[in-house]
Amino acid sequence: MPASVEFWFEFASSYSYLSVMRIEEEAEKRGVQVVWRPFLLGPAFKAHVWNTSPFKVYPLKAKYMWRDMERRSTALGIAFNRPPPDKMDSFPQFTVMAARMAIIGLEQAWGKDFCRRVCQTEWVDCANIAEKALLENLAIKSGAPQEILKLANHPNNKLKLRDQTAHAAKLDIFGAPSFIVGEELFWGDDRLEDALDWAAKL
Amino acid sequence: MPASVEFWFEFASSYSYLSVMRIEEEAEKRGVQVVWRPFLLGPAFKAHVWNTSPFKVYPLKAKYMWRDMERRSTALGIAFNRPPPDKMDSFPQFTVMAARMAIIGLEQAWGKDFCRRVCQTEWVDCANIAEKALLENLAIKSGAPQEILKLANHPNNKLKLRDQTAHAAKLDIFGAPSFIVGEELFWGDDRLEDALDWAAKL
Repeated sequence: MPASVEFWFEFASSYSYLSVMRIEEEAEKRGVQVVWRPFLLGPAFKAHVWNTSPFKVYPLKAKYMWRDMERRSTALGIAFNRPPPDKMDSFPQFTVMAARMAIIGLEQAWGKDFCRRVCQTEWVDCANIAEKALLENLAIKSGAPQEILKLANHPNNKLKLRDQTAHAAKLDIFGAPSFIVGEELFWGDDRLEDALDWAAKL
Repeated sequence: MPASVEFWFEFASSYSYLSVMRIEEEAEKRGVQVVWRPFLLGPAFKAHVWNTSPFKVYPLKAKYMWRDMERRSTALGIAFNRPPPDKMDSFPQFTVMAARMAIIGLEQAWGKDFCRRVCQTEWVDCANIAEKALLENLAIKSGAPQEILKLANHPNNKLKLRDQTAHAAKLDIFGAPSFIVGEELFWGDDRLEDALDWAAKL
């Protein structure tokens, strides 16, 4: 039986978006199960070197990333729009609330659909996914209970996201998306196939 | 007629090694010409953020890189050995002399063979390619003139490498290997196929 893959992603990460949109289809082809693990990169970066996104620290890499995203999304057939200049300041976006909701959704049946909707809102519409009313609306469309906002902000749920983020650091995860297969760490949407192939062979 | 690809590489870069070994075969499949451009990453890093290799700044990334190199080299059928602990301190290696010789070799007929020999010495034998006698020997095996060491250290040749490195910065190159196709920059051995495909379509 193939091993399962832990899929660690962050809504603020552009390359995580590509993996969110395509991982289930690629996993299904290989008969591999995927366990979705939303987490926050901020604390992971902070624990090491950066106080902010590497794309803020390193403008040339950011410039490259936007162009690379355009080329890769086109090649993969995934919709993507580079944020217009007046919206660029909101990137990387504030994703705590989206991640808290995703934690709940992924324990229920509506999580994956919710994650894809959030990502498309961020990376196709270039809307700000930090807005609670917007997130609430997306969650309910995906099948969340009406009181989702309250559930997301419950102390126990906040703690789950903090624990998950701390767990990512223990796995030596330093970027997103990352994939864990047994003892192996794969980093980047461009390692998605490698990670799934690895799991399929186990 | 397909466009040509500028292949910017640095002997100190592990992922450049993979591209050095496989780019000509992949280019030939697509009828694409490759112009080899050795340069030094040190000044490029210094011009931006880092005073040293990002793998020195960021140990988790280094740990990941060595394992990723093992997996990718195996998948690509390219020999590779992780340096043993007593040799690890010499990585990233001091590559100025190798790059100076490569500049000359690539203007003559022996350059590509020399680059592959240097890379194999570094990444398979884990020997230190900063040693002049070793480099001289590799160059002569590839077909260099006997006086290669003197030619490499000629002020005009030193200047060529400095100019090439400065030119890389003007192209917004921030890592190696990088590939330039017209106005497009591709970064990383895992974008080698994309870069060549892009050139083949032009």
